[in-house]
Amino acid sequence: MDRMRTHLVYAHPHRASLNAALRDEAVQTLEGLGHTVTVADLYAMNWKAVADFDDFGPTESDAFIDAAAEAWEKGSLTADVKAEQERLLAADTVILQFPLWWFTVPAIMKGWMDRVFTNGFGYGTSRAWKRYGDGLLAGKRAMIVVTTGAADAHLSDRGINGDINDLLFPIQHGVLFYTGMEILPPVVITGAGWQTDYADMVKLLRHRLETLAETEPIAYRRQTEDYDENKRLLPGREPEGTTGFALHAA
Amino acid sequence: MDRMRTHLVYAHPHRASLNAALRDEAVQTLEGLGHTVTVADLYAMNWKAVADFDDFGPTESDAFIDAAAEAWEKGSLTADVKAEQERLLAADTVILQFPLWWFTVPAIMKGWMDRVFTNGFGYGTSRAWKRYGDGLLAGKRAMIVVTTGAADAHLSDRGINGDINDLLFPIQHGVLFYTGMEILPPVVITGAGWQTDYADMVKLLRHRLETLAETEPIAYRRQTEDYDENKRLLPGREPEGTTGFALHAA
Repeated sequence: MDRMRTHLVYAHPHRASLNAALRDEAVQTLEGLGHTVTVADLYAMNWKAVADFDDFGPTESDAFIDAAAEAWEKGSLTADVKAEQERLLAADTVILQFPLWWFTVPAIMKGWMDRVFTNGFGYGTSRAWKRYGDGLLAGKRAMIVVTTGAADAHLSDRGINGDINDLLFPIQHGVLFYTGMEILPPVVITGAGWQTDYADMVKLLRHRLETLAETEPIAYRRQTEDYDENKRLLPGREPEGTTGFALHAA
Repeated sequence: MDRMRTHLVYAHPHRASLNAALRDEAVQTLEGLGHTVTVADLYAMNWKAVADFDDFGPTESDAFIDAAAEAWEKGSLTADVKAEQERLLAADTVILQFPLWWFTVPAIMKGWMDRVFTNGFGYGTSRAWKRYGDGLLAGKRAMIVVTTGAADAHLSDRGINGDINDLLFPIQHGVLFYTGMEILPPVVITGAGWQTDYADMVKLLRHRLETLAETEPIAYRRQTEDYDENKRLLPGREPEGTTGFALHAA
């Protein structure tokens, strides 16, 4: 494998947590494979979670979305946001690791998304903006590593919490694939701390990191190929009876 | 209608935004209907978004989830969290209003969920904990008011962003219904600022507020009725071919 660069974005409030141990295993494994690894440990960095006008420097725009675009164009975004954008641009692989809190990322990681994937970098308001399979981060691979307190069955296809793959769709498809990255199937550790042995978790995580390059990405549909001018899936593209988020993967 | 009490949780960074105008319309409408209205304007309150050990006061617990439970039991949660819990307990109706950012709530509102719906209030680790249709907030009604920059078609059943009802499922079902509340269909304002007239938005919002009491909640399935001991939906409960989040509403 060529020398690769991985950016690991990590959020857990407890420095000695199971998640922290898994993060260290991940870094060690990746470095052992020859990757250069950068880590954004959001709690340790005291990452600012709330996107607001302070992110933009002086602005003449009233509307938030316009002020964001102005800051991107002028290069006046705050240094913490710029640094994360640069680490993303430099990486081949992006990993988000977090505990599932209320069925999505902790607020501090949502704040990483809100602030880093700002107007001009993560999205644009033009109809010509490249998205869903293309964008500034095209050519990179992204993978989620998530721990859940909930049991495996509760997050299974008929589980009461909803299927974990559907719960992760807004992040994997709506954030990461949106910005151009290819999405590898997530590493999901359910029943963390009571249902799953630590040794088994590490084995799974290592295996997935060792096979990053040859793992097949989720076959999300590209905006340019399978959708009409109103961004609706073209008729007949899906197996009969498919509904919901499943429509958007081939 | 009896005198009612509504708690409106609101997040937008711009004090003169479309969302702010809609919030003011909502408060005025509700007060006109005789509701007592409390507003948690998260940006204006400088709401702390990041859940961390500082939320708990002195603790002897190492693990975050245990420290949260200890703080709940000792009554040592921070004053801002306690105040929101009290407002929720006092309310008949809870409204969350936000712009859709990266297909879910802004980080500051995720932080409201992470911190207010803490171990002991929003969830418990016991198998006997009442959830999904029952819990501390049972008997109340909740409704989302959400604005999107994306067009209506993009968030429709076959839209590339995913169906807005699926995108809201983790919040409506996973957070609000989980804690016991009944969930009214959301007020969704797509193409905010360019596709929808302000007068039409206000008309829709007012109508939904005026009919809060008689609107039929989403028929999410109760944990105690439709799931097996592993919290999987019992066979045959759904129309043939149903998959994904749609399984969890009758």
